[in-house]
Amino acid sequence: MQKETLLQCHQNILPYIHKTPVLTSKAINRMSQADIHFKCENFQKGGAYKIRGATNAVLQLPDGQKVRGVVTHSSGNFAQALSLAAKNVGIEAFIVMPSTAPQVKKDAVAEYGGKIIECEPTLAAREAAAKKIEQETGATFIHPSNDENVIIGQGTAGMELLEEQPDLDFIVVPVGGGGLIAGTSLAAYYFGKGCKVIGGEPLEVDDAYRSLKSGKIESNETTNTIADGLKTQLGDKSFPIIKQYVDSIIRVTEDEIVYAMRLIWERMKIIIEPSSAVALAAVLSEKDRFKGKKVGIIISGGNVDLKTLPFYRSKQAIINSNL
Amino acid sequence: MQKETLLQCHQNILPYIHKTPVLTSKAINRMSQADIHFKCENFQKGGAYKIRGATNAVLQLPDGQKVRGVVTHSSGNFAQALSLAAKNVGIEAFIVMPSTAPQVKKDAVAEYGGKIIECEPTLAAREAAAKKIEQETGATFIHPSNDENVIIGQGTAGMELLEEQPDLDFIVVPVGGGGLIAGTSLAAYYFGKGCKVIGGEPLEVDDAYRSLKSGKIESNETTNTIADGLKTQLGDKSFPIIKQYVDSIIRVTEDEIVYAMRLIWERMKIIIEPSSAVALAAVLSEKDRFKGKKVGIIISGGNVDLKTLPFYRSKQAIINSNL
Repeated sequence: MQKETLLQCHQNILPYIHKTPVLTSKAINRMSQADIHFKCENFQKGGAYKIRGATNAVLQLPDGQKVRGVVTHSSGNFAQALSLAAKNVGIEAFIVMPSTAPQVKKDAVAEYGGKIIECEPTLAAREAAAKKIEQETGATFIHPSNDENVIIGQGTAGMELLEEQPDLDFIVVPVGGGGLIAGTSLAAYYFGKGCKVIGGEPLEVDDAYRSLKSGKIESNETTNTIADGLKTQLGDKSFPIIKQYVDSIIRVTEDEIVYAMRLIWERMKIIIEPSSAVALAAVLSEKDRFKGKKVGIIISGGNVDLKTLPFYRSKQAIINSNL
Repeated sequence: MQKETLLQCHQNILPYIHKTPVLTSKAINRMSQADIHFKCENFQKGGAYKIRGATNAVLQLPDGQKVRGVVTHSSGNFAQALSLAAKNVGIEAFIVMPSTAPQVKKDAVAEYGGKIIECEPTLAAREAAAKKIEQETGATFIHPSNDENVIIGQGTAGMELLEEQPDLDFIVVPVGGGGLIAGTSLAAYYFGKGCKVIGGEPLEVDDAYRSLKSGKIESNETTNTIADGLKTQLGDKSFPIIKQYVDSIIRVTEDEIVYAMRLIWERMKIIIEPSSAVALAAVLSEKDRFKGKKVGIIISGGNVDLKTLPFYRSKQAIINSNL
């Protein structure tokens, strides 16, 4: 049943997304001793895979509900993605953003036609602001990751990757809120041939790693990571899927993340965001596990602020700047 | 005759090069009001188009001469390209580099198997060192740009671009030593349909612009540009072709170069070197000329030192650092 849902979702969202390319690098294969296939969602519309789930969520709304628009709270890629997805189907998107969000992110949301509602930079304020919009406008709240339609949509990146490379031994993806890894694990289950899905997670925000150990959703006490898209925690929709279908989570240090990011920039000449580098960092940190294997990596996005690149700064400076 | 030479060259070098992708950007098209097709030689082997000409030059050597190897003086992309081209056909490459060349460039040459000979950082010292190697080893000197076989080889990037987009109105390329623009202008003449070739050149090193005005090869008195690949001047092999087949040269400021580079990084999520940005900068600086036209741009390379990126520094700081 989920297999059909995934296939139907892919058909539905195809007019609104790019079928992104799958790239390889001889140099990185040599270093990792694995055969790595990078699914480049940094080239996706809006610069990240998030448009897949956002589009599916919007398209799944009943017509009467759809016309009232959608609302979310996000300061990251999902804000842009939902704005664009809503614009594509001709409805309004209300985006609750903390007043402290960088101007560059506000500009990107505005460019895609999202209506920004500013709030205090706390989760409580965000949720209250979103709830208020829901009540005032009748807009439907779409969670950035903890939503079945979003999860299914995010799974289509892995589906496309397996379409091109059906015999992958592994797919490795970054873990934040869990939408991408949950969707990918469903895709691998239904379309792979024994393909295992592994998450890469910063050691500094290893809630998913701890959640799989303890069997319940864990939180992060600190969020000191350059991988700014991965600071969130799992939810009640994503966690059960992750528990059932994900093989394991590999944790990596901040230095490993910057090293992997630099490697991809220098060797592949493509721009990826720090969160995306976590997957390659995971593969490089457990080389023996991936040696001689065929590995898919989903490059989740390429939205970086070029003014705050890590290459000329110390790790601590990066963390302090809260990039 | 040159048409056949180009076709034959392309066949000869194909086993040793990538057929690089042609990318487009809706955002950049919207901004320029042109229909731009980017031929991405930043994804080429060695990170730049130079492998095309280097490979052709090596393959054209008679067997008896080939075995004695090749020699060049370069601190840039051609050093890597000739090292790789020589390695691919199993011969030696001697690379004369100024002792002041950045370690990262020496490492890249060494990685591709080139034998580095250090010399004082003057043109006279470089030429003397190369001449000495020629005499001692019997290696053949290959000039980075002022060589017929190199020029023909560089022309294959434009050929491939016109194969994919036969009805381009313009191809715009950066101008340094003139190898790329000379080869591209031959490709456009033989394979285009009235396709005009235009050079982009930094105002700070506008020798090609002045050469086309005066009718003789001009030099640069200063080299204060971030586009480090474009500091050289035309030669007696490249200039006659450029005079005959190139439409014109557009000069751009350092600010325009950094702006165009940033635009491509941010919007296309690909890494290009400053020299490559000069072509888009030229298109954006004369918008009316390209409005509504179909324009090819050759992204010449993607070799940048990530430790010295321009995005967080003033123009003057970049120039002072002599990136």
